[in-house]
Amino acid sequence: MADYTATVTVRLKSGVLDPEAETTQQALERLGFELADLRSTDRFEIDLDAESADAAADRADEMAERLLANPTIHDYEVAVTER
Amino acid sequence: MADYTATVTVRLKSGVLDPEAETTQQALERLGFELADLRSTDRFEIDLDAESADAAADRADEMAERLLANPTIHDYEVAVTER
Repeated sequence: MADYTATVTVRLKSGVLDPEAETTQQALERLGFELADLRSTDRFEIDLDAESADAAADRADEMAERLLANPTIHDYEVAVTER
Repeated sequence: MADYTATVTVRLKSGVLDPEAETTQQALERLGFELADLRSTDRFEIDLDAESADAAADRADEMAERLLANPTIHDYEVAVTER
């Protein structure tokens, strides 16, 4: 068993409205910043013990499927690093 | 001018309580997952035009200072890639 950190990045599927990101973009523009687009994503950094990096990735994948992401509106990515 | 994407990652300083992350960790544990720790971070992907990658990073840095992060409780990192 080794210590891994799995990073799960959850983002809205393209086409799904993101009012929070729009508000943030407008607030930045009101402050005088010029930007073409702004997207917001949630990231979960999960420390876990696993047999291998693949096993850690599988587990994080299952966490995303079951709780962290909503498959109707979200895409997610999993990346694993050893601690 | 070129097109860049600046990624601003905002995380709570260590020692600052994160009730959302705690709740998420407990929910995963109730589902039967074993994990040592879970941290959540916010990420903003900002598309902008700039003279150079450094200029894009400086601008994203200023956005983080002025709006995206609260320096009392947050640390942030900026990464820039060309689009």
